[in-house]
Amino acid sequence: MSSTVDKTMGDSKALDDKYNIEAAEVLANEAQHLPITEAAPIYEQLLTLFPTAAKYWKQYVEAHMAVNNDDATKQIFSRCLLNCLQIPLWRCYIRFIKMANESKGLEGQEETRKAFDFMLNYVGADIASGPIWMEYITFLKSLPALSTQEESQRMTAVRKVYQKAIVTPTHHIEQLWRDYENFENSVSRQLAKGLLSEYQPKFNSARAVYRERKKYVDEIDWNMLAVPPSGSYKEEVQWMAWKRLLAFEKGNPQRIDSASSNKRIIFTYEQCLMYLYHYPDIWYDYATWHAKSGSVDTAVKLFQRALKALPDSEMLRYAYAELEESRGAIQSAKKIYESLLGDDVNTTTLAHIQFIRFLRRTEGVEAARKYFLDARKSPNCTYHVYVAYAMMAFCLDKDREIAHNVFEAGLKRFMHEPLYILEYADFLTRLNDDRNIRALFERALSSLPPEESVEVWKRFAQFEQTYGDLASMLKVEQRRKEALSRTGEEGASALEGSLQDVVSRYSFMDLWPCSSKDLDHLARQESWV
Amino acid sequence: MSSTVDKTMGDSKALDDKYNIEAAEVLANEAQHLPITEAAPIYEQLLTLFPTAAKYWKQYVEAHMAVNNDDATKQIFSRCLLNCLQIPLWRCYIRFIKMANESKGLEGQEETRKAFDFMLNYVGADIASGPIWMEYITFLKSLPALSTQEESQRMTAVRKVYQKAIVTPTHHIEQLWRDYENFENSVSRQLAKGLLSEYQPKFNSARAVYRERKKYVDEIDWNMLAVPPSGSYKEEVQWMAWKRLLAFEKGNPQRIDSASSNKRIIFTYEQCLMYLYHYPDIWYDYATWHAKSGSVDTAVKLFQRALKALPDSEMLRYAYAELEESRGAIQSAKKIYESLLGDDVNTTTLAHIQFIRFLRRTEGVEAARKYFLDARKSPNCTYHVYVAYAMMAFCLDKDREIAHNVFEAGLKRFMHEPLYILEYADFLTRLNDDRNIRALFERALSSLPPEESVEVWKRFAQFEQTYGDLASMLKVEQRRKEALSRTGEEGASALEGSLQDVVSRYSFMDLWPCSSKDLDHLARQESWV
Repeated sequence: MSSTVDKTMGDSKALDDKYNIEAAEVLANEAQHLPITEAAPIYEQLLTLFPTAAKYWKQYVEAHMAVNNDDATKQIFSRCLLNCLQIPLWRCYIRFIKMANESKGLEGQEETRKAFDFMLNYVGADIASGPIWMEYITFLKSLPALSTQEESQRMTAVRKVYQKAIVTPTHHIEQLWRDYENFENSVSRQLAKGLLSEYQPKFNSARAVYRERKKYVDEIDWNMLAVPPSGSYKEEVQWMAWKRLLAFEKGNPQRIDSASSNKRIIFTYEQCLMYLYHYPDIWYDYATWHAKSGSVDTAVKLFQRALKALPDSEMLRYAYAELEESRGAIQSAKKIYESLLGDDVNTTTLAHIQFIRFLRRTEGVEAARKYFLDARKSPNCTYHVYVAYAMMAFCLDKDREIAHNVFEAGLKRFMHEPLYILEYADFLTRLNDDRNIRALFERALSSLPPEESVEVWKRFAQFEQTYGDLASMLKVEQRRKEALSRTGEEGASALEGSLQDVVSRYSFMDLWPCSSKDLDHLARQESWV
Repeated sequence: MSSTVDKTMGDSKALDDKYNIEAAEVLANEAQHLPITEAAPIYEQLLTLFPTAAKYWKQYVEAHMAVNNDDATKQIFSRCLLNCLQIPLWRCYIRFIKMANESKGLEGQEETRKAFDFMLNYVGADIASGPIWMEYITFLKSLPALSTQEESQRMTAVRKVYQKAIVTPTHHIEQLWRDYENFENSVSRQLAKGLLSEYQPKFNSARAVYRERKKYVDEIDWNMLAVPPSGSYKEEVQWMAWKRLLAFEKGNPQRIDSASSNKRIIFTYEQCLMYLYHYPDIWYDYATWHAKSGSVDTAVKLFQRALKALPDSEMLRYAYAELEESRGAIQSAKKIYESLLGDDVNTTTLAHIQFIRFLRRTEGVEAARKYFLDARKSPNCTYHVYVAYAMMAFCLDKDREIAHNVFEAGLKRFMHEPLYILEYADFLTRLNDDRNIRALFERALSSLPPEESVEVWKRFAQFEQTYGDLASMLKVEQRRKEALSRTGEEGASALEGSLQDVVSRYSFMDLWPCSSKDLDHLARQESWV
């Protein structure tokens, strides 16, 4: 068996291959026909990969239940219930609880009642939860009542559950309403009238919401396994369906109190994450929603869960750090930034830059400077770090000298990077320092190979169009043509000035000395030559 | 008849309709069957529209020749020959000359000989000129020689023509070579050997060039009428074919002396302009080629011809002005700039701007300032003029105060122009003046309607990402969402921060805190919401 596991889900496969749905279904099917001792490791492997796959959890736990492994069953339920808000799995749970407590008399009944409450607290908002509400009512009705007082208590308990069930938009809401009517009428025709007319509008509203909610729910594929987004159309459609359902719930269509509404929203997000477990945007939206609703601590916990699900997501880490920084938890934010830095060898340039900016914001100029000096020495420090630090010094500290020095120091190392040259030129342009801009272009172009210098030449020409006279403008264009013609095979004709060059020299912003049709014509011709 | 003319070519039609090729062909066909007095106005109308249509000129002149209108014939030839380097038209001309001089004896023969020389000087380089060379030789041979001396002179004249013909790449080059061999052998077997072995390699080279040239020539549609480019595929193909032929001739494939090579290049350009008469790039290339070859005066004349052909082409005017300015003819350049300004009402903003820049280059700061102060008052002066003048003051005169004042003055007039706001903000960014940038954004956003302010908000957010702290960054994004949500129908969900916003806050240059796949995913989702 283990050879099958290796073949279909082994480490030797690429990461995306790991989440092979067909292979998973084949395995789950095979496991069903094996004795539990052989099946268990297969389920464990499947559930490591698909921790929110309620259907596998159910299959797994049922296999244990079938052979009365009560301890194992309990353990599995404790691992999966709170992350898998799925009705069939939870009904399996209540079946187990009822069986386990059947012979335990009063104490057992109390345990079962608690379990029902616990369950309805978690999944009672599900559109498919109707049968559980009914089952609970039936269970409550079946409890022995030895005195009139006990009978009255039982009746009150049943009424309370009914009154919750008939304002919950489920598939069975109409039946539950009819049952409730009968129930009240059987208790007291007189009392019934008042109660029913009080609850009728609430039920009506819940039923209307049910009908709308059903449309959204029907768009969702409840059998889908949670896999990282591959960009397929089906995935996008599912993502969209979930976003719509979430937006619907967030709108509180039933106009219930905000605590109840929030509970439904949380329930929907949690269900959503069973299927879109690998979607960072859902985690982010969920956490942000909590933060906006005032539960920043819950938002923090959600980011922690999110990073367990998607440990490689840098953007979630930045989002998390931002939340911490926003609420003044600077040390927590710093720890997250440090986790982004990781070990020195694999630190990304962006992580260096964002950490420098973070330090500048939270600890000041000196801390940022110190870190920059270290980061510079990192083997994979790219020119971006120099640009970011120089611009920070210029824009925030208004220190043009340091900024200039940083650019100059970077130039020693990144003279071969045309994009660095352009950034440096931009900086000098902000200083309005044409002498140095010209010198920079000349220095760079004397060392860059022609194929790397296309953009630098282009910028040089633009620069002369703004800062130069006609002769210097024409000269740099001619030089550009000569330098670049060495790369192409266009030969002598590429050296000639074209009318398109004239157009570019005598344009300004979005104003052109010709029609857009002429422009198209000239551009098309340029590309044909 | 005139009603037909009106219908098909009248002023009431749109400009492009004017160049209706089918209508022209129908008219030309009709004219052929009318008496010359009725046909003449039709031809005149056709040739006003298609002044380089050799086939219509030929038809027109032949109609006169058929009725022996010698004066009219002469007049028409004088109007068309030099602009229409087409062999059939010129053969028609030589036929006319021969007829006219037939009965005039020696004097007539001399006239005809001059006409042949004149013709071969203009169209002798044509690939189809073989028959003319032959006809000339036949004509020369037919001249009476009354003495040995005259016979010798005749022989020398014939030889000279042969020796030109056999180094010209024409369809008849091989036949001409054979004729020449026979000719020399008939004159003197002994002399022939030396002459033929001297000319054999030149002939070989010309023949090789002929074979190549033919490939280029065959791509050209010699029946095409010159119409303004409409962007059709057929036109592009013809344009390309001409560019290839021109490039071929410019390469001097026969390695002849540069005067002869230049003559062929000029001939090819002139022929090209018969068909691509409305293509500014051809006029420009031709003029530039002359300027580069040292004939700047010819280049100037070409620009004048070009502007007769395309009086509305601003880009040709700028190119012309540039040539004059480059060679120091500042007054001529100024006249061209003034022609671009036209009357005040129709002056384009770009013409104002380019004239200010020209004045700054050639007459100095004060002249430019004066013109700017006037141009400001022009009814169609747009914000571009302010931007251009301010940037000139800043970049060239290093006068940040004037630049700032100009931007500020412009703001009073162009507060409603988001693009002006962005230019002003760019300028303040160069001054590193964040207090004023922030103030500008606030001022602008308090008066711009939401649908006009999208880009301003975007730039404001980018600005805070560089200059602000985390709180100001998040605040401006929130304000942006609130302001812009009022325009769309997205409602509350558009107000929420998205993970894409996080990604944009924590990106730097081309570094992103996520994969490009993630980016696509987030972007796609953004557009779905």
